[in-house]
Amino acid sequence: MKYSIYTRTGDKGNTRIGGGKALPKNAERIEAFGALDGLNSWFGLVSTKNDCGEDIQEDMAHIQQFLFDCSSDLSIPKGYREYKLAQDHIDWLEMKIDSYSEEPEETQYFIIPGGTELASWFHILRTTTRDAERRIVTFMEQEPDEVNPFVLKFINRLSDYLFVVARVANARKGVPDVPYKRSEKVFR
Amino acid sequence: MKYSIYTRTGDKGNTRIGGGKALPKNAERIEAFGALDGLNSWFGLVSTKNDCGEDIQEDMAHIQQFLFDCSSDLSIPKGYREYKLAQDHIDWLEMKIDSYSEEPEETQYFIIPGGTELASWFHILRTTTRDAERRIVTFMEQEPDEVNPFVLKFINRLSDYLFVVARVANARKGVPDVPYKRSEKVFR
Amino acid sequence: MKYSIYTRTGDKGNTRIGGGKALPKNAERIEAFGALDGLNSWFGLVSTKNDCGEDIQEDMAHIQQFLFDCSSDLSIPKGYREYKLAQDHIDWLEMKIDSYSEEPEETQYFIIPGGTELASWFHILRTTTRDAERRIVTFMEQEPDEVNPFVLKFINRLSDYLFVVARVANARKGVPDVPYKRSEKVFR
Ligand code: B12
Ligand code: B12
Ligand code: B12
Ligand SMILES: C[C@H]1O[C@@H](n2cnc3c(N)ncnc32)[C@H](O)[C@@H]1O
Ligand SMILES: C[C@H]1O[C@@H](n2cnc3c(N)ncnc32)[C@H](O)[C@@H]1O
Ligand SMILES: C[C@H]1O[C@@H](n2cnc3c(N)ncnc32)[C@H](O)[C@@H]1O
Ligand SMILES: [Mg+2]
Ligand SMILES: [Mg+2]
Ligand SMILES: [Mg+2]
Repeated sequence: MKYSIYTRTGDKGNTRIGGGKALPKNAERIEAFGALDGLNSWFGLVSTKNDCGEDIQEDMAHIQQFLFDCSSDLSIPKGYREYKLAQDHIDWLEMKIDSYSEEPEETQYFIIPGGTELASWFHILRTTTRDAERRIVTFMEQEPDEVNPFVLKFINRLSDYLFVVARVANARKGVPDVPYKRSEKVFR
Repeated sequence: MKYSIYTRTGDKGNTRIGGGKALPKNAERIEAFGALDGLNSWFGLVSTKNDCGEDIQEDMAHIQQFLFDCSSDLSIPKGYREYKLAQDHIDWLEMKIDSYSEEPEETQYFIIPGGTELASWFHILRTTTRDAERRIVTFMEQEPDEVNPFVLKFINRLSDYLFVVARVANARKGVPDVPYKRSEKVFR
Repeated sequence: MKYSIYTRTGDKGNTRIGGGKALPKNAERIEAFGALDGLNSWFGLVSTKNDCGEDIQEDMAHIQQFLFDCSSDLSIPKGYREYKLAQDHIDWLEMKIDSYSEEPEETQYFIIPGGTELASWFHILRTTTRDAERRIVTFMEQEPDEVNPFVLKFINRLSDYLFVVARVANARKGVPDVPYKRSEKVFR
């Protein structure tokens, strides 16, 4: 590579966002898109582990691009350019959820994360998505106008997609989900 | 499934806890049980990787149920029902720690996380448990009466259990733990 | 082992640092070195997965020791002893980055984390390193004199090292990096 990847500019704890504004690295905005960068990396890993369907494989490739769109929208000040995330992305996820939901058997009880290795990975993606969601909410609390509302919707729906896909991964291998023993009936 | 897993109610960043109270998703209570949901997912994964004893396999299945009990106790207001976590759970962990402690060779020095793949996973569970512990402490700082004290005890002891089991995983495969070179004598 | 690993002293949410000072477990200092303990555990795991060069394997063994030096420097009050991390450690990383940078093909666009399993793991280490960096910055904001500046520099450079090594892992297997489709030209 001709350029050097390190610029040393962040050595004292400050950095810049799109457009050039300077911020401390622990600013809520940076926490939010940093969490999405991490989530995207986990998706990259799980993509190399999927042994349970081309449909899910293709979904993950799209989701990785969409997650980059999300962090891209969070990394620029409002109005800098048009946002990338829109209602389409949410419709796409809901369509996927509806269709996968037919595969696993209905449960009324919370399930213990696990089963096949792949199902476990989807539960990890599910909770990591929810971690990122909380960081986006914190940023939004601080600067309500700076969060594209479709980003938050997408991330909320994504964790439900991942719950269903975790169950699909087990169902496709004939592995039953283990119920949480002391659960009340919570799903309806 | 007859029901739809997504309800769209959390699309703007708010949610509910057991009993129905509304909270922002980044509330300290939600951070705390969200961290436990994540930890439980990691246990699910490591359970699929264990190649080093039925005893540890059975422990992990119990621990996953207990972790759900912990998050369940954190997800309801005090007095809503009796807590699930009690001294028994701590006694159970201490008994396990005492017994596994006989297997690895004594060390005075910090050890570098690693060795076998499984030992590495237990170190990851150990530090992820400690991450969750910090989130519970933050919630307790804010609402001291809302944390079942046995939950905190259990999580504290769990990370010590995981340290010992990480060492057991290496010992059972004859893989020595690597000491931290510039460590003082810290264990006694 | 003769000693018991659990002391029960932290059961109520408080703990001690090097030198003996008491702190709540969620103190920013503890968050910072706790994050490094976690990062070190992930390095332990990835070390067991490396199939792409002795050079990188040796680097990781050194980095684990250095990460322990970093958390060690963060776990004592300033002046308690000389710091362990110094400019040498940064020079070492920069030399490594410069040399690995010749292997992958130049890209102007952000890349989607993924490719080989190992490359995915390096992206995960990269983002986990950046998570830890933000926790160190938060601690430094609170107590500017308590952070060895070389620790922050090292961690900043480490994430750039990991970006390059992720790309090297793909290049050595002939797997092309997938560009982010809607990326502007960002690297130069
Ligand atoms: C706490 C909680 C969690 C915690 C669980 C912690 C634990 N260890 O228990 C965590 C964070 C792990 C979690 C995760 C998930 N959860 Co949750 N969770 C809840 C919550 C707030 C309480 C669950 C509980 O313990 N209920 C028992 C007691 C405490 O509940 P209660 O308030 O007294 O309510 C009772 C009555 O009011 C009555 N009731 C309430 N509504 C209705 C409606 C009708 C028609 C009837 C007859 C009765 C009735 O039944 C309830 C249970 O007996 C519920 C919402 C809720 N209040 O039920 C969502 C809820 C059950 N979760 C939900 C979802 C979607 C999930 C996840 C799939 C989210 C995700 N994408 O990851 C995962 C699944 C995890 C798994 N492994 O299975 C949805 C389910 C939607 C549905 N279609 O049923 C709910 C309903 C929230 C919502 N969106 O409205 N969850
Ligand atoms: C910082 C710290 C960590 C950091 C280390 C960071 C780093 N890079 O160094 C992290 C977070 C990684 C860590 C992790 C763990 N730690 Co720790 N850690 C400490 C701490 C606070 C300082 C360690 C240190 O550097 N000591 C050297 C200097 C700075 O210490 P000092 O305060 O000056 O103390 C010296 C003297 O006072 C004297 N001394 C103190 N007490 C006594 C008692 C006697 C009888 C004698 C003769 C001398 C003596 O010896 C000390 C060392 O020379 C100690 C508590 C402590 N103060 O020692 C716990 C401590 C060593 N950790 C402990 C534990 C249990 C762990 C974990 C297993 C926890 C877990 N479940 O994950 C892991 C193990 C990690 C591993 N990979 O091996 C326990 C050990 C209990 C025991 N039976 O010995 C201690 C003692 C804390 C406690 N509970 O009281 N730890
Ligand atoms: C946001 C951001 C991220 C986000 C991306 C989120 C997303 N989904 O888009 C995240 C956190 C994921 C990220 C990660 C990384 N990033 Co980044 N990131 C940025 C940032 C702030 C904006 C990128 C962007 O969208 N630019 C487009 C628009 C919004 O940018 P703009 O401000 O309007 O700038 C334009 C003009 O000003 C002009 N311009 C600016 N400078 C110059 C100089 C010249 C000579 C010219 C001709 C034009 C020009 O070009 C810009 C782009 O068109 C840039 C800094 C920056 N301002 O460009 C760094 C930047 C691109 N990142 C950088 C680095 C190093 C990385 C990482 C490798 C860090 C790491 N170790 O993990 C990773 C790589 C991730 C990957 N997968 O490829 C460096 C690249 C250094 C280099 N040699 O080019 C930059 C430049 C920051 C820096 N250090 O100065 N990043
Ligand atoms: C299913 C339950 O999970 C909780 N919940 C909703 N969103 C999140 C999140 N991002 N992280 C953790 N917990 C969450 C709420 O309590 C909801 O009712
Ligand atoms: C072994 C050392 O680890 C630190 N310690 C104790 N609890 C936690 C936690 N939850 N997370 C990170 N570090 C912790 C204290 O400094 C203790 O002395
Ligand atoms: C490449 C871009 O990544 C962001 N950035 C810099 N440091 C961190 C960090 N520790 N965590 C998350 N994001 C970071 C800045 O916005 C920088 O410009
Ligand atoms: Mg939700
Ligand atoms: Mg402890
Ligand atoms: Mg940097």
